[in-house]
Amino acid sequence: MDINDKDKVNEKYFSNLSSRERAIFEGAISMGALFHQFIGTPVSLKSADSLQKAIEDSIELQPGIKKIKVLINPHILVELDNEFEYTSLTGDMLDVKIHSEFQKIRALIRMKFIPELNYPLMYVESINEE
Amino acid sequence: MDINDKDKVNEKYFSNLSSRERAIFEGAISMGALFHQFIGTPVSLKSADSLQKAIEDSIELQPGIKKIKVLINPHILVELDNEFEYTSLTGDMLDVKIHSEFQKIRALIRMKFIPELNYPLMYVESINEE
Amino acid sequence: MDINDKDKVNEKYFSNLSSRERAIFEGAISMGALFHQFIGTPVSLKSADSLQKAIEDSIELQPGIKKIKVLINPHILVELDNEFEYTSLTGDMLDVKIHSEFQKIRALIRMKFIPELNYPLMYVESINEE
Amino acid sequence: MDINDKDKVNEKYFSNLSSRERAIFEGAISMGALFHQFIGTPVSLKSADSLQKAIEDSIELQPGIKKIKVLINPHILVELDNEFEYTSLTGDMLDVKIHSEFQKIRALIRMKFIPELNYPLMYVESINEE
Repeated sequence: MDINDKDKVNEKYFSNLSSRERAIFEGAISMGALFHQFIGTPVSLKSADSLQKAIEDSIELQPGIKKIKVLINPHILVELDNEFEYTSLTGDMLDVKIHSEFQKIRALIRMKFIPELNYPLMYVESINEE
Repeated sequence: MDINDKDKVNEKYFSNLSSRERAIFEGAISMGALFHQFIGTPVSLKSADSLQKAIEDSIELQPGIKKIKVLINPHILVELDNEFEYTSLTGDMLDVKIHSEFQKIRALIRMKFIPELNYPLMYVESINEE
Repeated sequence: MDINDKDKVNEKYFSNLSSRERAIFEGAISMGALFHQFIGTPVSLKSADSLQKAIEDSIELQPGIKKIKVLINPHILVELDNEFEYTSLTGDMLDVKIHSEFQKIRALIRMKFIPELNYPLMYVESINEE
Repeated sequence: MDINDKDKVNEKYFSNLSSRERAIFEGAISMGALFHQFIGTPVSLKSADSLQKAIEDSIELQPGIKKIKVLINPHILVELDNEFEYTSLTGDMLDVKIHSEFQKIRALIRMKFIPELNYPLMYVESINEE
């Protein structure tokens, strides 16, 4: 099997999924990956930009990921900067949109802090089928 | 919204997914989480058992996860033990089965090293609809 | 250079450190490693034991580490368990003692949450020279 | 105790270390932190720059760190890019210099892959006492 022959990989390992399910699958893997790779990273208001960019650039490499937008909540960082010089990145600070795509089906996977739940929820915000 | 009222969370954030898609979504998040949380952990033949158990116990806590089985390839560890005293956990050493479930639909998410691809592939091994 | 010939490695790369400095160096590396490897891991009261053991078993493999004791604060987990089913491991929950040793000099590296500082501090609790 | 009163923290928790030992201690923590935070991150030739910058900017925030230089080996990435589209960051790809300082004593902590050892070694490259 040729590594570059993606059709054969899809046929052998992914024929049990619809294109819609595949887009959801790949986007969800990348959201779980993002959270557990970067949580704990030291961060401050001045380092947030480069961390956001590195998260976006690295997670975009993953299979089926078309675009990703990461926002580290600046209001939380401003408050923390008053008291400490930096903190560890937590899920509560993150608002992330991952756009995954398979065979023209695009899914938007979202993670954001939901005040009523008091934790960062990962969910599928929308799925576009052309 | 009450955090314990899972029906309301499902209605508000997950009504766009079928039960099958939800099982895939939650299992995929946990597989991505597992990989990026634990890759890099120091491991040897003698520490592999406790690491396997901790990975299973922690990832089983995640939403929708019913069961998980982690195997760190002992053959790779034996070879490494001959040369070094320990190594860092890599994806190539892992064989993982995550059983996710939503509304009686069960998905088996798998990660294993595929020699022909020369990397650890994450895919959906089976989906059982009763 | 033979990997098993630790004396040669010490001579080539560590001749600029005293035994005391070397014990501090190795213990400090392992404390930084521990924090950033495991922060973010899903944890609950029932999974805390296996996580503590896996952290101890894996970090003990690192160079110069003789013993390590990890305690995940059960009081924090009890409170969290009332509200959520699990949480992500944070530094505030951890009390860690790493015993490093080089040439009979033993250092005890500690991390614990200091209320007055409102963060988990890493410091050298004691150094025993025989 | 005032969080901003670093002298009091130093007196209470670090009076058992010389300035030289303290510089070694803080630099070593940050090197262990760096390795275990970022190992496993997806990386390719085109994403290496932003990842290097984010690692530098985040680890520089840690106590006692004055400067840090991270190089992800481009030769390894070029070879990998021929076969795969990306890989997971490993210690073998990293060459890192962390400059820590305490009371005018500067330590240079280094991690680089040593071919004779076949693994990435962390050591103290130099200590400058003025």
